[in-house]
Amino acid sequence: MGLIVQKYGGSSVADATAIKRVAKRITETKRAGHDVVVVVSAMGDTTDELIDLANEISPMPPAREMDILLTAGERISMSLLAMAIANLGVEAQSFTGQQAGVITDEVHGKARIIDVKASRIRQAVETGHVAIVAGFQGVNPNTNDVTTLGRGGSDTTAVALAAALEADVCEIYTDVDGVFSADPRIVPTARKLDRITYEEMLDMAASGAKVLMLRCVEYARRTGVPIHVRSSFSGREGTLVTDAPIEGEGQMEQPIISGVAHDRSEAKITVVGVPDVPGTAAAIFEVVAGAGVNIDMIVQNVSAARTGLTDISFTLPASDGAKATAALAAVQETLGYESLQYDDTIGKLSLVGAGMRSHPGVSAKLFGALRDAGINIEMITTSEIRVSVVTRADQLDDAVRAVHTAFGLDSTDEEAVVYGGTGR
Amino acid sequence: MGLIVQKYGGSSVADATAIKRVAKRITETKRAGHDVVVVVSAMGDTTDELIDLANEISPMPPAREMDILLTAGERISMSLLAMAIANLGVEAQSFTGQQAGVITDEVHGKARIIDVKASRIRQAVETGHVAIVAGFQGVNPNTNDVTTLGRGGSDTTAVALAAALEADVCEIYTDVDGVFSADPRIVPTARKLDRITYEEMLDMAASGAKVLMLRCVEYARRTGVPIHVRSSFSGREGTLVTDAPIEGEGQMEQPIISGVAHDRSEAKITVVGVPDVPGTAAAIFEVVAGAGVNIDMIVQNVSAARTGLTDISFTLPASDGAKATAALAAVQETLGYESLQYDDTIGKLSLVGAGMRSHPGVSAKLFGALRDAGINIEMITTSEIRVSVVTRADQLDDAVRAVHTAFGLDSTDEEAVVYGGTGR
Repeated sequence: MGLIVQKYGGSSVADATAIKRVAKRITETKRAGHDVVVVVSAMGDTTDELIDLANEISPMPPAREMDILLTAGERISMSLLAMAIANLGVEAQSFTGQQAGVITDEVHGKARIIDVKASRIRQAVETGHVAIVAGFQGVNPNTNDVTTLGRGGSDTTAVALAAALEADVCEIYTDVDGVFSADPRIVPTARKLDRITYEEMLDMAASGAKVLMLRCVEYARRTGVPIHVRSSFSGREGTLVTDAPIEGEGQMEQPIISGVAHDRSEAKITVVGVPDVPGTAAAIFEVVAGAGVNIDMIVQNVSAARTGLTDISFTLPASDGAKATAALAAVQETLGYESLQYDDTIGKLSLVGAGMRSHPGVSAKLFGALRDAGINIEMITTSEIRVSVVTRADQLDDAVRAVHTAFGLDSTDEEAVVYGGTGR
Repeated sequence: MGLIVQKYGGSSVADATAIKRVAKRITETKRAGHDVVVVVSAMGDTTDELIDLANEISPMPPAREMDILLTAGERISMSLLAMAIANLGVEAQSFTGQQAGVITDEVHGKARIIDVKASRIRQAVETGHVAIVAGFQGVNPNTNDVTTLGRGGSDTTAVALAAALEADVCEIYTDVDGVFSADPRIVPTARKLDRITYEEMLDMAASGAKVLMLRCVEYARRTGVPIHVRSSFSGREGTLVTDAPIEGEGQMEQPIISGVAHDRSEAKITVVGVPDVPGTAAAIFEVVAGAGVNIDMIVQNVSAARTGLTDISFTLPASDGAKATAALAAVQETLGYESLQYDDTIGKLSLVGAGMRSHPGVSAKLFGALRDAGINIEMITTSEIRVSVVTRADQLDDAVRAVHTAFGLDSTDEEAVVYGGTGR
């Protein structure tokens, strides 16, 4: 008995049959005595199809109009879902982001939620309705214009609504069973995690785990909303993302390592032969930042081989590679470096665990496992609860398996693992 | 130089190519120095496809959710059209019915416009934008819920906006060249009318001419908005619907007859052997009205053959035939009639012209023309500016051609007539 916010992604409502299945799950939750608020994405490939239409019309569609176009997708899925629920004998009403009181800033295409005025949703719930809310969208209160939240937007809508409504839990339904100790497509013995802290989940998401987006986890941590990541295709318990102790469990014993994340989407740029004087690194990263590129890991070589010169390497999203190299090439004379090297055949492995704070030797054990597997390490960064290394891309899968085993994460039971792909 | 409201139907924006063509016409109007507000319907078959989806989900979709679903269609077409216009270098902004201030009552699926608060549209126009407004939709101000206007809704949106903005003209773009003296598919010599009064247009629409819906013409007459019906596929002048004298034309000489309309969508019910006492007709039509059926023509036979009994015939939309006969059959004993006859193989021909007021003998000439063509008349009704007769359905085309010729309406010039189908 309580208030549950459930979020269903596009693959969970891809067609009429899928919508009816989701409606059944929602009515079961409602009939079990809970109040239910549902956040829904656009059906299947609707958003991509609308983007294609826009590109047929204009190479540079205005952002305001693009947002109006794309929000048609949730309008369709939310009303159909409300119809399907009503057809099962439970009263339901659907609401746009604006009607649900999702207030954002004015940045079309990647707006940030600045407030949730959920009085209308609260009223719908209090009068016994299931409230269906369009994910991914809000309203700019100054212009009354619709905005979209960008990637991970529907998850964020769900968490924001859960926070505003003081819901007991925000259930994120996806096509996998939860958060795993590694990607089961690479590590068949990966274990589903029953619990994970916000901090660990943030580091997992930042390190390439795709099941939850960073911004949604950040919102949950800031507001203290427990997230339950679970499958819309099975009835199983998934992974609970929370810092709160679970009733009856006593003080949770922190596992040293929660999981091994990997990321194949980055590239490495090396600026070769940089004058080894103060301010050089600052100058390079100002240029990169000025091009609108976020960088991840940075390594500055010890300048031994050539007196007065050094090399600086950093990683960045491979999709920003052209932009960053062009920006750096344009200022080669000013910066005085010798050459640029670009490498997009790298992989990144990250070991995440809140317990490693109190356990020295985690890094050493990681490096040892990689050495034993014959894998060369190209870059290293460490933070409080994470160690990340860069390897060759084609060695990444072997590296993930070796590390997963070395830290005792392999599943020992026979439980079948259900894993349908990356989350959305 | 002035403010022009243009309305484009679904067939005019059926795909990316069509949207670009419409965008070109709009920018040409704008570049000619006019302010332009555009009302647009959903693309091609979008609305029907959404209805099909809803029916897959639920046999009885709640009306509120149905309206949310259907309004996604205009959301898509309006934003794409704004993108296409922007791509031609003219600033454009799209607005939902709510954003455009189209205030309606609360009747989902067939809401009535009760006010238009067009300040936001006015502001867009004053800042040099083309404003694109979603047709067919409005908002119930008490609940902030979206509503749809039902059949002919987009035309009505256009006229309502034109009235609120005091536009110089409301151009309704369709797939025919204008309003014709008869349906050119039946009468190849039909003439496009350059002008027609609201009253005549109302009678034409009520008599089966499909180019404009009755409610849109009613709104225009009440508010005095001139409507220009024209083709989105040609550059020609269409038909101007207005009561105002045209500058430089002096007092318009009223033609006796404007056109011949026909309607094949009605059926005839005859209640046979009704007691010929006061109140019987009232009782019959109370039963029919109670079933939600609108009737059109009524004829009560002179009770000569059988003392104390008479027959009452009336016409109604054939789509309501089952409902009306069921309602009447249920009260046969109370009403005391002998039997019911149902006939859906009738056709209705209507002669419309404001000039017939001052020209006696129009009816006689009509009946003579039909007699000469060997066509039997089954029912007759007359009003101030209209005479309607019911014939056998399979004789209707011959009847229309005979009457069109008899009243000298056949075109004498060689101008090619462009007519692509019924208007929407």
